[in-house]
Amino acid sequence: MKVGTIQLAYAGELEAMRRQCVSKITEAKARGAELIILQELHESHYFCQNENVENFDLAGDFEEKISFWSSVAKEYGVVLVTSLFEKRTAGLYHNSAVVFEKDGSVAGKYRKMHIPDDPGFYEKFYFTPGDLGFEPIATSVGKLGVLVCWDQWYPEAARLMALKGAQILIYPTAIGWFDADTEDEKQRQLDAWISVQRGHAVANTLPVVAVNRVGFEKDDSHVMDGIRFWGHSFIVGTQGEFLYQADTESTVAVTEIDMLQCEQNRRIWPFFRDRRVDAYHDISNIFID
Amino acid sequence: MKVGTIQLAYAGELEAMRRQCVSKITEAKARGAELIILQELHESHYFCQNENVENFDLAGDFEEKISFWSSVAKEYGVVLVTSLFEKRTAGLYHNSAVVFEKDGSVAGKYRKMHIPDDPGFYEKFYFTPGDLGFEPIATSVGKLGVLVCWDQWYPEAARLMALKGAQILIYPTAIGWFDADTEDEKQRQLDAWISVQRGHAVANTLPVVAVNRVGFEKDDSHVMDGIRFWGHSFIVGTQGEFLYQADTESTVAVTEIDMLQCEQNRRIWPFFRDRRVDAYHDISNIFID
Repeated sequence: MKVGTIQLAYAGELEAMRRQCVSKITEAKARGAELIILQELHESHYFCQNENVENFDLAGDFEEKISFWSSVAKEYGVVLVTSLFEKRTAGLYHNSAVVFEKDGSVAGKYRKMHIPDDPGFYEKFYFTPGDLGFEPIATSVGKLGVLVCWDQWYPEAARLMALKGAQILIYPTAIGWFDADTEDEKQRQLDAWISVQRGHAVANTLPVVAVNRVGFEKDDSHVMDGIRFWGHSFIVGTQGEFLYQADTESTVAVTEIDMLQCEQNRRIWPFFRDRRVDAYHDISNIFID
Repeated sequence: MKVGTIQLAYAGELEAMRRQCVSKITEAKARGAELIILQELHESHYFCQNENVENFDLAGDFEEKISFWSSVAKEYGVVLVTSLFEKRTAGLYHNSAVVFEKDGSVAGKYRKMHIPDDPGFYEKFYFTPGDLGFEPIATSVGKLGVLVCWDQWYPEAARLMALKGAQILIYPTAIGWFDADTEDEKQRQLDAWISVQRGHAVANTLPVVAVNRVGFEKDDSHVMDGIRFWGHSFIVGTQGEFLYQADTESTVAVTEIDMLQCEQNRRIWPFFRDRRVDAYHDISNIFID
């Protein structure tokens, strides 16, 4: 399967971002992509850098968003993974990934389950944690285990998708550096982010695709300088081996993923066979004192 | 904390292996190690390469083993992680890690929970899966999350140890290559093994220590050629960064681990805060059809 990944820098609000995305989708499609994945919140800047009620306007009309991206998926005949700011009702918003089928129909939706909140990433102000659980989305190119950003640090999320039959794990993401950190610390953070996701690939014998944004975005509130989104979108195979790795530039890539590798590797290392489901119940605790 | 890791090649049965281990413990202690970790089944060759009832003799007398390693821990005044073939009663054996305190007392025991079985690694023939669960072992150098080999592929095991307060994850291991595999496949397998464990470090914000055996061991049954244990014992910090990495030689290392890094990194990336314990119950299923 040919997977298109689109790593972009901020280029202005809604219209500009949509124009940029569609231009890159055109390119990915021309290069044979059947599945195209956009980065987290690709219709705007990363507005969670501060808590500002006016930013709720960015959610706009969810039905209009669905309609727009549906028409894009249909026009290009691709399975499309989008990441949208969903307004469900007044005062209730989600960070949602919507997957469109090649004919423009909605294949499924995932609402980000794990919501971060740390300086520069005030997502708990904006997003209610998802209420759809961890359910793979069935499409014509396979069952997609779509998760979003902060989810990537949680082995439970990846495992649940795998146990429910996901054939690939997909993470639209917005993560970056603060310039004030040392180069060593920046490298450790980037490596940690890659490591934990390669770990999900290996533990679940699934390919993993992470699509991150890139470029510097200023903090409008001037409390902090801003975030330098670190790009480095990547794809690994079922043994965690790199199939693709971006750098810190805007870029569109089309990568071939062997969807039969899972079957082969799960025969060699049959981790699922030996799980101790009799002894995992404490995972449903916050902590065991 | 200074951690000693001892990666050894097979050097003959019980007496020879014990002599070799103690010689390396002497060296690690002289270099300041307070916690010393031995590889999986360090009293013998890796006998699980084939199914042979005579190999049950290798379990010997478990009380004698306890007594021997207790005296070593006491003599050197170190916390010692051993990996022993435990005979519990006739026809009931475990692959057990026993941890000794500096005064020679038994700090705790872990019985390998996940038991592999694939060509060359016929552990299901020898070992009953552990019945002690995933419980960290309290010692004078901290709470040790001791797991064994095949456990390393299971995020659930690492997570449960972390949720129960483990301050470090420790994996005595015996894993290697088959010479018939291509160099590319060997590299992928080694990288997968490292990746999944670095993932546990990152996801749980804990240092991880893996101590593997090394060297070629022939398959006595002549069905297969044998296993080339790949060494590469390693230690990573709480962001998955390498603190130590061995190659494919017998070696003893003493590595300083900053046990305060966990506190610092869990403040920056507080993954435990946001776990969706309301949505993890399906992890206790074998699969969800």
